Amino acid sequence: MNNFEFYNPVRIVFGKKTIPTVGKFIPKGKKIMLLYGGGSIKKNGVYDQVLRGLKGRNFVEFSGIEPNPLYETCLRAIEKIKTEKIEFLLSVGGGSVLDATKFIAAAACYEGDPWGILTTGGIRIKKALPLGDVITLPATGSEMNCGSVISRKETQEKLPFSHPLVYPLFSILDPETTYSLPKKQLRNGLVDAFVHVLEQYATYSVNTPLQDRQAEAVLRTLIDIAPDVIQKQDYDSRASFMWAAACALNGSLCCGVVEDWTTHSIGHELTAFFGLDHAESLAVVMPALWQHQFENKKDKLAQLARRVWHITSGDRDFQARAALEKSVEFFHSIDMPTRLGDYKITQADTQKIVDRFAKRGSIMGERQNISAPQVEEILKLCL
Amino acid sequence: MNNFEFYNPVRIVFGKKTIPTVGKFIPKGKKIMLLYGGGSIKKNGVYDQVLRGLKGRNFVEFSGIEPNPLYETCLRAIEKIKTEKIEFLLSVGGGSVLDATKFIAAAACYEGDPWGILTTGGIRIKKALPLGDVITLPATGSEMNCGSVISRKETQEKLPFSHPLVYPLFSILDPETTYSLPKKQLRNGLVDAFVHVLEQYATYSVNTPLQDRQAEAVLRTLIDIAPDVIQKQDYDSRASFMWAAACALNGSLCCGVVEDWTTHSIGHELTAFFGLDHAESLAVVMPALWQHQFENKKDKLAQLARRVWHITSGDRDFQARAALEKSVEFFHSIDMPTRLGDYKITQADTQKIVDRFAKRGSIMGERQNISAPQVEEILKLCL
Repeated sequence: MNNFEFYNPVRIVFGKKTIPTVGKFIPKGKKIMLLYGGGSIKKNGVYDQVLRGLKGRNFVEFSGIEPNPLYETCLRAIEKIKTEKIEFLLSVGGGSVLDATKFIAAAACYEGDPWGILTTGGIRIKKALPLGDVITLPATGSEMNCGSVISRKETQEKLPFSHPLVYPLFSILDPETTYSLPKKQLRNGLVDAFVHVLEQYATYSVNTPLQDRQAEAVLRTLIDIAPDVIQKQDYDSRASFMWAAACALNGSLCCGVVEDWTTHSIGHELTAFFGLDHAESLAVVMPALWQHQFENKKDKLAQLARRVWHITSGDRDFQARAALEKSVEFFHSIDMPTRLGDYKITQADTQKIVDRFAKRGSIMGERQNISAPQVEEILKLCL
Repeated sequence: MNNFEFYNPVRIVFGKKTIPTVGKFIPKGKKIMLLYGGGSIKKNGVYDQVLRGLKGRNFVEFSGIEPNPLYETCLRAIEKIKTEKIEFLLSVGGGSVLDATKFIAAAACYEGDPWGILTTGGIRIKKALPLGDVITLPATGSEMNCGSVISRKETQEKLPFSHPLVYPLFSILDPETTYSLPKKQLRNGLVDAFVHVLEQYATYSVNTPLQDRQAEAVLRTLIDIAPDVIQKQDYDSRASFMWAAACALNGSLCCGVVEDWTTHSIGHELTAFFGLDHAESLAVVMPALWQHQFENKKDKLAQLARRVWHITSGDRDFQARAALEKSVEFFHSIDMPTRLGDYKITQADTQKIVDRFAKRGSIMGERQNISAPQVEEILKLCL
């Protein structure tokens, strides 16, 4: 097991009818900005519940935060924060609204060009406004971590950052808010959480039996609940989905293990250039990455097959391949495509992704063996 | 799934050579009290490592905290804290030293008789000194929770309390500190962690598939590593042991589930009256409790048998009984007795435990169906 530090101070408030308690968790006397997206929270009753929770509190609103939240939109929010002297940010919506809120919290206190936060991964952050959230879409795990991903329209870039100062003070998770989600978003959320776990698992072992089993616990749960999540409006499966998505990326699964976030890195470019949903990009890249890195990942993939899919026959190679097939099968079972062709993207189209990795000089993978030429090979396997 | 709140702000610093970094995590300029036990930390090098970490810091020492830490000892520490104007407590040792430190932290700021903290379970705490710890014994999970258990010699009582204000600011876990532990303490730690998980698992289901699997992850890990933990000085198995003990009682496994802490409640009395080690008391009570509450717990016990011991034959009753037998077998495999007779305790001896539960009017169990008469029956099954 590798040395590690784990710190996660987010207060999780989980369950039915918890949204109207939101006021209790926001420090008294602070001027609040309520941030949200395109207005779906006004249709599904979440907005009204939040307003009940904010009764008697001083707040302004900022709406219109889009999926893959834009840097440009965040800058507008920051202007309003300065004019209105905002002291607390309340995000209401999915991971996109929350990611934007985290960036806004840091950028509002940042000296210099806020884009610098993203090009340096967040390490230059010295201060941030406090924030909390009501999360309505189980997927990114943003509600229980200090990471965020922001897109810039102007340059077609999508970059992540993280900093402990943008941990939400609290996150309210009411599974009933998911009842109004379209099937596509439920499918995306399941895949997003699933891949988050695997980016922390499908590498090589450094003897972390507990963390392995904790990861397998989330994976098996996601597989088991997926049919009900997609087909039913059932409280228990939605509750497990919501908690699984948070646990998939709350920092506990990566304690002491070796990670590989290559799928995300390549996936972000597919979103930035071609507009694939985040989860769609992951479902395309992960199987191709595993195929490309089969020799390096096969021990762990075989364990995945044995433990999560109970495949006990065959040798290690057979089992590892079965893990790949079963993962793809899982994606297909919830109508998630796994090929670039499904989005009419050709090899020629992807050249600009390869060029970008070459220009950045990125080196990725748990063995630091993936740079632009390998990205090109992996993208070919995605076609 | 039941509604829940989860909040755990402890910073975990895990791994080799982490102890000398302790100073980094203690707020600057604070006068520190270093608390420890009988001096084993001076023999195994931990004390020297801590002192390196405290170089240049203003601190005093308080030693002599015993296993099952005494209220009377804590009162002496509090006197010294007041005289010396201590502002930060650093616990170095096992769960007993840390439990004492938590109580001292709260009691030093408490108005009125500090015993009141324990008779009310901690709810009256308004303030506490900040604290951190270097944990040297994987067992209680105290390093990652806000609970503590204190014994009073004068009255032969052992009472728990908890409060978010006594969460350690940080806990340093270096698995190498466990190399000098005697086999008995390793055995105790394994059983303590194992039973902690089961108090949050062996009840009835409220549809929490993820939490169930997370619990099973810890249990299976403990079973797998136990032989190496007992027989070898091997870093990886000690590291997994240390992390498993923390994860067994850090508040994550009880999220949204139904718990039953009856084994602990009865076990505490066996320690208070007869001096059994905490884990020894748990290994005696748990199997008897399961036998007594077999009908109520059998669904979950059967799941335990299937998932953790891979017992797939037989019906539910058969599997549930197998879970009981396998748990006892696990205890015996690491030389942990499971009968009161092993300690020469007779039925007549235990009458005072029954009387105490009757006097307190305790009602326990996940179905609130265990009070003094049932405690008497359970203790008979322990003989």
